[in-house]
Amino acid sequence: MSTETESNYFNSYPPPKALQRHEALTRAFVQLQLEQNRRVVLVTSGGTTVPLENQTVRFIDNFSAGTRGASSAEQFLENGYAVIFLHRQFSLLPYSRHYSHSTNCFLDFMDEDPVTSSIVVRKEYQSSMRDVLRKYRYAKQNNLLLVLPFTTVTEYMFELRSLAHLMKPLGANALFYLAAAVSDFFIPRDRMAEHKIQSSEIPAHIGQHQPIQDDEVYTGYNEDQPGDVEKTEYKSKKLVIDLDPVPKFLHRLVDGWAPEGSMIVSFKLETDPTLLVYKARTSLQRYAHHLVIGNLLSTRKWEVVFVTPEEPHERWIRVPKSKRSKSISGSENQIGLAEKILHDQEHPDQPEEQQKEEKGESRGENEEGGGGVEIESLIIPELVKLHSKRIASRSTT
Amino acid sequence: MSTETESNYFNSYPPPKALQRHEALTRAFVQLQLEQNRRVVLVTSGGTTVPLENQTVRFIDNFSAGTRGASSAEQFLENGYAVIFLHRQFSLLPYSRHYSHSTNCFLDFMDEDPVTSSIVVRKEYQSSMRDVLRKYRYAKQNNLLLVLPFTTVTEYMFELRSLAHLMKPLGANALFYLAAAVSDFFIPRDRMAEHKIQSSEIPAHIGQHQPIQDDEVYTGYNEDQPGDVEKTEYKSKKLVIDLDPVPKFLHRLVDGWAPEGSMIVSFKLETDPTLLVYKARTSLQRYAHHLVIGNLLSTRKWEVVFVTPEEPHERWIRVPKSKRSKSISGSENQIGLAEKILHDQEHPDQPEEQQKEEKGESRGENEEGGGGVEIESLIIPELVKLHSKRIASRSTT
Repeated sequence: MSTETESNYFNSYPPPKALQRHEALTRAFVQLQLEQNRRVVLVTSGGTTVPLENQTVRFIDNFSAGTRGASSAEQFLENGYAVIFLHRQFSLLPYSRHYSHSTNCFLDFMDEDPVTSSIVVRKEYQSSMRDVLRKYRYAKQNNLLLVLPFTTVTEYMFELRSLAHLMKPLGANALFYLAAAVSDFFIPRDRMAEHKIQSSEIPAHIGQHQPIQDDEVYTGYNEDQPGDVEKTEYKSKKLVIDLDPVPKFLHRLVDGWAPEGSMIVSFKLETDPTLLVYKARTSLQRYAHHLVIGNLLSTRKWEVVFVTPEEPHERWIRVPKSKRSKSISGSENQIGLAEKILHDQEHPDQPEEQQKEEKGESRGENEEGGGGVEIESLIIPELVKLHSKRIASRSTT
Repeated sequence: MSTETESNYFNSYPPPKALQRHEALTRAFVQLQLEQNRRVVLVTSGGTTVPLENQTVRFIDNFSAGTRGASSAEQFLENGYAVIFLHRQFSLLPYSRHYSHSTNCFLDFMDEDPVTSSIVVRKEYQSSMRDVLRKYRYAKQNNLLLVLPFTTVTEYMFELRSLAHLMKPLGANALFYLAAAVSDFFIPRDRMAEHKIQSSEIPAHIGQHQPIQDDEVYTGYNEDQPGDVEKTEYKSKKLVIDLDPVPKFLHRLVDGWAPEGSMIVSFKLETDPTLLVYKARTSLQRYAHHLVIGNLLSTRKWEVVFVTPEEPHERWIRVPKSKRSKSISGSENQIGLAEKILHDQEHPDQPEEQQKEEKGESRGENEEGGGGVEIESLIIPELVKLHSKRIASRSTT
């Protein structure tokens, strides 16, 4: 993305209403962390939306509950970072995520004391909630967590650009951890429909608005259904949505927006194990940033791959088998598949050394406690080491 | 939608995994209500998704937090109905909605008692939460509320069909209140991409899968970008999504799925005030059901229109001016606009009688308490009257 593409994009949208307020909050937050010489990570989290109409009834969304981002933010706080949490509105938040989006209703955690009538947390949840509440309070009271929401992909772009600029004084102490699921495609503003797209014909005499001409380009177009079985006066229509690629903002983040010497980490989510590492490598080459964390939709809770410009280039991080939490949507049997496919592609004559490092038994074996280990508790400490190395290398040169 | 279209649609998808369990729960729930001779309303709520890939990374969504549905469900419970709440997963739920999706984090409602270390609800929230918790407990303990989630439009269709069938024994005591924002367009299963749609070219030698042929029809197609300023080896692509109209299930609900004598209420959400009443009337004609509740995106918290086959055909229900809650997204100055436009269209020579019924001062003036009145507290009692009338008319014939 050139600076010209950048200004074209940003000039065609009004800035988000909340941007000025977010900038003021961020400026003060960054100043506080500078005084403490504290590292600051910008965590982006959740999916961005692409509205199909200006008065939005329909939109395209990217799948993400925000678990990766929210869990990672907690881990960064544990590791002494201050966190700016730029997240999709109503997606999961650090700490509160343990109680929202659960199959239980929030009120199921509560009880009315039969004597005092006061509303208290039920006995069985007291201990875990105390733990979470203390950490949350600590982060808030010490100004270590700044929570900022976005909804559309355009809002996300505006926020990212502004926050990166405001983080400039942090220099190498700044880390960008881009876990948000950002749309690759969007509808340019000049093609967007103003009103809800209609699924059936509107007679010309209805409404004050001109009916849309067949040759007019907007979001896309409605096509008559050939051979529709329904009565013709209620004919349903097809819809064709015509999307442009979103300008590749990561170029600009690396080359201009982010502080000199800062570290930039992006994510690559794929569903096809044969593509994952290829796509992660391509992204790293293309943007020349510092780390791509690759993950498959089906195994993302249990394994990721760190793809770096330096040796070892690819490094798999896995939750050991005995520590894996169950996941309804995941497929545990696909763990290791992407690595195996890559190995077979690149070394077709060399059988993979299964014995040497049993898949999933390699790291984190000494984790305490039963139940599931969240993979973010393995990812973030590794990432912090890389960040420290980068900071150290810069201070010696 | 013919029965043939119906079976084609349902035969091309596997039923949702949760369907059998939901059916068992519903069967038992309906049986309980039958024994009490209680009315039962099926409230649908939240937006349905249309996945763009089988292994879904992107999807089209319909805007809806679920406020209308969740608030209406509470009102139905207040009016003695049992409620089946079929809602988009993670959208707002009756009662808990007062504490989720707030700008506050859930943990901000909590405090650690400095003496006992137990986690309690903060003083200032005690009284309102006690009220909400009691109502929630009452509904749960008396088996008056059954909460069932869906995500995709296909899941929604399967659930709606099954639940309607299971409600047959309720006869005229059954009410359908279809507040969910259901997709009008979808991608037929045989055209859907298996994996995440790529935004840039993948070399042919990568991956085990055949590259998609130009003439192959799938979700849509990627087009090369002409005159792309970026390096050609990283060429970004356009995406064209080709959607079919969703079969009009409401026909089948009215003609076959729903109990004989039951009442069916649908919603019509529009953004263009010149279209609202036209669209609501057309829907009522088309499906021959009993009530369409029309609302505009910009004024939906403050006004709706009841469109019925009987006199008075259109009836506006509005929150009186002094009782309106503020809304960031809404436009209060558009209240009354759709009615005025319609009047001007149909009676161009007759000035609207502004004096006789000052907009928004007509109903609910005697509501107790300050602050905002939720419009659902005006909608549901009116609807209950219509339902009672329908039940009475059937029992006398």
